Amino acid sequence: MIKFQAEIDVMPKKEILDPQGKAVTGSMKNLGLAEIQNIRIGKHITLEIEAPTAEIAHAKVEEACKNLLANLIMESYTFKIEAV
Amino acid sequence: MIKFQAEIDVMPKKEILDPQGKAVTGSMKNLGLAEIQNIRIGKHITLEIEAPTAEIAHAKVEEACKNLLANLIMESYTFKIEAV
Repeated sequence: MIKFQAEIDVMPKKEILDPQGKAVTGSMKNLGLAEIQNIRIGKHITLEIEAPTAEIAHAKVEEACKNLLANLIMESYTFKIEAV
Repeated sequence: MIKFQAEIDVMPKKEILDPQGKAVTGSMKNLGLAEIQNIRIGKHITLEIEAPTAEIAHAKVEEACKNLLANLIMESYTFKIEAV
């Protein structure tokens, strides 16, 4: 078994409003950082997985994203895996 | 002015418990994904910034992370910037 580390980003879909990001974008002005715009906030998830091959690890992480980590109606995900 | 996109990861520090990650790790077993371990959940933030140089954009994003996006007592952050 090989141990892999996965780094997953789960973000609100582009066509979905992100009220948290919008609020934080507004706060940037008060910090004197008005040049920062269009903040979007999602989740960054790291995990470890043991699998015989990288392909199997990839499939398992895909399954975890689809079934638990992301809400596919409102969120999209990307991830990368590397052996550790 | 050049437009940059920044991708920021804000994660709970290693020595800090991550109860949300722990709960999700437990749920993986019920999904038949017991080979997934040690889940940690943080934030992934994307933003746009206009600045005359990449160095200035970098400094501004650093300032935003320190003052607003991350709680440095409990969280650490990493980011990368690229021109868009």
